[in-house]
Amino acid sequence: MRIAIVGVTGAVGVEILRLLEQRNFPITSLRCFATARSAGKTISCSGKTITIEVLTRKNFEEIDLVFFCAGSSVSKEFIPEALKAGAFVIDSSGAFRMEPDVPLIIPEINAHALGTKQLVTSPNCAATILLMPLFPLHRLFQIKRIVASTYQAASGAGFGLMRELENETRAQLDKQPYPHQLPFPYAFNLFLHNSEIDESGYSDEERKMRFETRKILEDDSIQLSATCVRVPVLRAHSISANIEFHKELSLDAAREAIASMPGVKLLEDFVNNRFPTPSDASEKEEIYCGRLRLDPSQPNTLELWCVGDQLLKGAALNAVQIAEQLKRRTG
Amino acid sequence: MRIAIVGVTGAVGVEILRLLEQRNFPITSLRCFATARSAGKTISCSGKTITIEVLTRKNFEEIDLVFFCAGSSVSKEFIPEALKAGAFVIDSSGAFRMEPDVPLIIPEINAHALGTKQLVTSPNCAATILLMPLFPLHRLFQIKRIVASTYQAASGAGFGLMRELENETRAQLDKQPYPHQLPFPYAFNLFLHNSEIDESGYSDEERKMRFETRKILEDDSIQLSATCVRVPVLRAHSISANIEFHKELSLDAAREAIASMPGVKLLEDFVNNRFPTPSDASEKEEIYCGRLRLDPSQPNTLELWCVGDQLLKGAALNAVQIAEQLKRRTG
Repeated sequence: MRIAIVGVTGAVGVEILRLLEQRNFPITSLRCFATARSAGKTISCSGKTITIEVLTRKNFEEIDLVFFCAGSSVSKEFIPEALKAGAFVIDSSGAFRMEPDVPLIIPEINAHALGTKQLVTSPNCAATILLMPLFPLHRLFQIKRIVASTYQAASGAGFGLMRELENETRAQLDKQPYPHQLPFPYAFNLFLHNSEIDESGYSDEERKMRFETRKILEDDSIQLSATCVRVPVLRAHSISANIEFHKELSLDAAREAIASMPGVKLLEDFVNNRFPTPSDASEKEEIYCGRLRLDPSQPNTLELWCVGDQLLKGAALNAVQIAEQLKRRTG
Repeated sequence: MRIAIVGVTGAVGVEILRLLEQRNFPITSLRCFATARSAGKTISCSGKTITIEVLTRKNFEEIDLVFFCAGSSVSKEFIPEALKAGAFVIDSSGAFRMEPDVPLIIPEINAHALGTKQLVTSPNCAATILLMPLFPLHRLFQIKRIVASTYQAASGAGFGLMRELENETRAQLDKQPYPHQLPFPYAFNLFLHNSEIDESGYSDEERKMRFETRKILEDDSIQLSATCVRVPVLRAHSISANIEFHKELSLDAAREAIASMPGVKLLEDFVNNRFPTPSDASEKEEIYCGRLRLDPSQPNTLELWCVGDQLLKGAALNAVQIAEQLKRRTG
């Protein structure tokens, strides 16, 4: 396949490139796009040297598949051009996810929804990490309501915030003044996800978790309230979820279902008090899940903790897995 | 009053000493106890130099009030001796909190429960920080069920873990090997609170939040499920709470009630996306609260975010406020 990556120098783009190579994705040609700042620089893939180009509207001729991972505004501007040129598009941004006729895919969950569309979207990272362990539970017990609090890593806001966290932390340890980029410190600090808040009081990130959960699980009756928080962690998101089910819940069956879900790993050691941490999940493809317990405060309710690498299953890996599905579909 | 502090060199003890001085607590004599490691060292209070002593069972003669902040095992061993010697005791540990005839006090909430007991306990830090904004809401709307996820600072485990977090973080930034004390890294990482887990799957910290909430709000019908998490933050805990009420909830009335609660500060700027962070609350006496929003997933349910200094209102300040109440009671 003739591939293009838009946003190749970003935190997600770098991982897409690496995963395509690592997973031997059949590439006949590769074009890499980024902002003018990176244009002219080279990157290597499978032993070949590729020069980074600035994206223009004419760039999509003779390309079969484009990965977009440069944010919503780039996706909004250039995806229509890529589609017009006949390319398949996998978009990791939030630009088109909620369009009714655009598939939103986690391959382990709803590959069937791919259909024959030219544009496929990859979900929000926190939604993906939550839904991987929740999908088998939904099939068994039918989710009624989710209350989720997230512990999201810097990587969700790209390399820039990851470096900011490291630099600011070093400055604080050295008791040096540091002109932090955010309206508050990030070193040894945390803050409510600073995406746009609407009149409901929920941030965009929190609303994405609600709407994407319903779309991916294909059940608009699912209720979800999320509080999204950025913590001083580099690249893995954690989620504390309280889930109420319609059907009678069995803890043993829940555990078994999660343990047999592809892409999910149960890490639960109650004796040694050892459960998933971001450091366990960082640079790993699996979502780590554990600390399942019955919530005694109401019937058929489960407490669950899950952690996943934001850049891998939370973004790049899921996009590459979608590409593998498209490849299979197109033969 | 003739005062003693047991655990004076610990993170909470240091703050108790500082607050007694700052708030002009009437001290006629002060004895300071710590482990053998600190014995013989001196500390100063109100211009006087005090030599730290090792605690023995005979130490409580001629003392009116003892602060215990050296952990549960020290409290269990020595509080009975202090009571026998006739002293009033304020215990910041979990040793006696759930004894039915021992008051568990947050002065702004249930000072009336002090009664005439010789032993008074100060609650768990996460419970205190959560209940300060919840108390006025409970009076208005009557709490039915709370789902809480915490973001707890290193200070909850004392100076040792605070220094560990700083040292380990520096080593990671310098790419130096570091023999971390925990079974996993703490630098740029987080983990489920590692207190003892019982057969229910809940940790001791999580159970404390449930039982102490019921005792302090004097309502055993309140349901609470908590997930307690240690984050790489130094001294302020944050809590994401989803609260269902029995009565009809009004967001405006909730906001007004919280804003007029003594010791609580509302920090909500929806326009500029600015809400409480641990750095806002660190070294502050108030609990910061904000980001109130109606949870659309079920009726009469509120999402709330609160942050408080773990060492101050979460521990030392509350203990000193209890002492001030005792002082008033005894004249």
